[in-house]
Amino acid sequence: MKNYRIAIMGATGAVGQQMIKVLEERNFPISELRLLASSRSAGRKVPFKGGEIKIQELNDDSFAGMDFVLGAVSNPLSMQYAGKIVDSKAVFIDNSSAFRLNEDVPLVVPEINPDDARANNGIISNPNCSTIITLTALSGICRITPIRKMIASTYQAVSGAGVEGMNELEKQISDYCQGNPLVSNVFLTQILSNVIPMIGSKLENGYTTEEMKLQNEGRKILHTPDLKVCCTCVRVPVMRSHSISVQLVTEDPLSVSEACSAIANAPGCRLVTELDGRDFPTPLDTADQDLVYVGRVRRDLIDEDRGLSLWCCGDQIRKGAATNAVQIAMLLADLK
Amino acid sequence: MKNYRIAIMGATGAVGQQMIKVLEERNFPISELRLLASSRSAGRKVPFKGGEIKIQELNDDSFAGMDFVLGAVSNPLSMQYAGKIVDSKAVFIDNSSAFRLNEDVPLVVPEINPDDARANNGIISNPNCSTIITLTALSGICRITPIRKMIASTYQAVSGAGVEGMNELEKQISDYCQGNPLVSNVFLTQILSNVIPMIGSKLENGYTTEEMKLQNEGRKILHTPDLKVCCTCVRVPVMRSHSISVQLVTEDPLSVSEACSAIANAPGCRLVTELDGRDFPTPLDTADQDLVYVGRVRRDLIDEDRGLSLWCCGDQIRKGAATNAVQIAMLLADLK
Repeated sequence: MKNYRIAIMGATGAVGQQMIKVLEERNFPISELRLLASSRSAGRKVPFKGGEIKIQELNDDSFAGMDFVLGAVSNPLSMQYAGKIVDSKAVFIDNSSAFRLNEDVPLVVPEINPDDARANNGIISNPNCSTIITLTALSGICRITPIRKMIASTYQAVSGAGVEGMNELEKQISDYCQGNPLVSNVFLTQILSNVIPMIGSKLENGYTTEEMKLQNEGRKILHTPDLKVCCTCVRVPVMRSHSISVQLVTEDPLSVSEACSAIANAPGCRLVTELDGRDFPTPLDTADQDLVYVGRVRRDLIDEDRGLSLWCCGDQIRKGAATNAVQIAMLLADLK
Repeated sequence: MKNYRIAIMGATGAVGQQMIKVLEERNFPISELRLLASSRSAGRKVPFKGGEIKIQELNDDSFAGMDFVLGAVSNPLSMQYAGKIVDSKAVFIDNSSAFRLNEDVPLVVPEINPDDARANNGIISNPNCSTIITLTALSGICRITPIRKMIASTYQAVSGAGVEGMNELEKQISDYCQGNPLVSNVFLTQILSNVIPMIGSKLENGYTTEEMKLQNEGRKILHTPDLKVCCTCVRVPVMRSHSISVQLVTEDPLSVSEACSAIANAPGCRLVTELDGRDFPTPLDTADQDLVYVGRVRRDLIDEDRGLSLWCCGDQIRKGAATNAVQIAMLLADLK
């Protein structure tokens, strides 16, 4: 069996650290794991498979000899290094949004469009976290009949803003308990005991960049260019799992029980029928594991033939980012 | 000017206490305020307008001579005492859901259907809190053209489960800080750092009692029996304001700017254009005041003529319950 050489660009962030864990958990056959970060972190050691790996400073020569580079950095850094990675003959699996809508770059959820990944030109984009979680929840339904319309309201965890977002919520909880004033740097206002209906930057049509991703990325991943999605993205004081309330309209009529069977049988999904005495998932249930949990599947009360309503939760750092990227690498390496 | 005799049934709960405050704030002309609660609280004194009022035990003789009885008790207690209140000639303004869909009982949001309140037979129901907040946000739009369909996802505060709900979140925050195990008695599972997509009890159609209220109560309040609403109700770790993400379709086309003007001019509403450097409200912004704040008004991406998407927040204990009830009494007393 071949052993792979893998680099993680941005190895010290929330997603980068999770990529290391997922590679280890899935026992990815690795001959070299190169951990790349800024000069600030260079030299620090990170445990991996019983040993330790020293973090190296990211530079133009970081990618020589690599089979895969998993990117967990900002758009500008992804754009800066993409050319070098492609030149080095590694496949760049990029978690930033820089190339997601580029027509030469596949945008992949392995459970949905694995063939797109195989047709890459050196760069594959990992979709937006809410998009991955929502589409994984709907992947079984999409196999029966295309989705034509979706209305989604999200309940997004603070991990979506990285380690800093998680730290800000933790700090606000402890400051609240100690009677200290609460400080907001990462989020636009206090996130403890609050929800914030603004993620990303606002576009001319009134939606945010984050809200348009479910439609724009969904069209590309599902190969349904006419898909219409109306989304409201809301930050909630939850640590690391996103939840999405979805109303969808399919092309052909679909019963609730057909939809439930499709979800139950879809890879990467768990249809929740019993969980600690409940028949629905919460974001705490899905933290730190890889499945997307789905519940509250019911007939839409507006379109009673083609409409369905459901609720899904998934770990933002794992399936919403790190796990999906590692799955893409596994798919290209032809690993199960 | 006439002075009124008012009783509050359930004066020690979250809503009952707020009713006392709102009566005082609005300077309701009162000659007697009778505070009624269970024997457990009887004898306790509550401050009111510089003096103190002793809580009396609720019983069949509690209502003699009253002009208004504001009810903030459970459905069974409301049903038990409604007949006695009507016999005493007081008008019963009931915050429970016991009589809301009874055709002899008006269901009133004063900004929307004040005339219904005047045509009462001794009982007037206060609507569900999410329903009041959502419909107040939409009241300006409804004056221009009827709403035909709504899809709503809620972000509901723990105060909706009463003082016990608020105490449970406070306790979980402090237990978390002290490293104690978190205990859930009021909510189905941990609410700190979580959201729970199940409020009320589940019906045969898969929706909850809470989720059907926006459609059933909305039809009655707006006098639109064909209104279709598909709702998902979610508890979030927020103390006392509900938020609702709404997609709506109106009968006639309506531009975003027409909708914004209608909202800005609607009584009880504030269209948020600037608030601490933001152009959207959060539930913390609306805590402990009476207006419903509306923001994120934008064209629906699915129905581009008649569809709109928006976000609203309002204090659950105030406008969602106590304030709306006091407003109904003010309307009947012909007070501004």
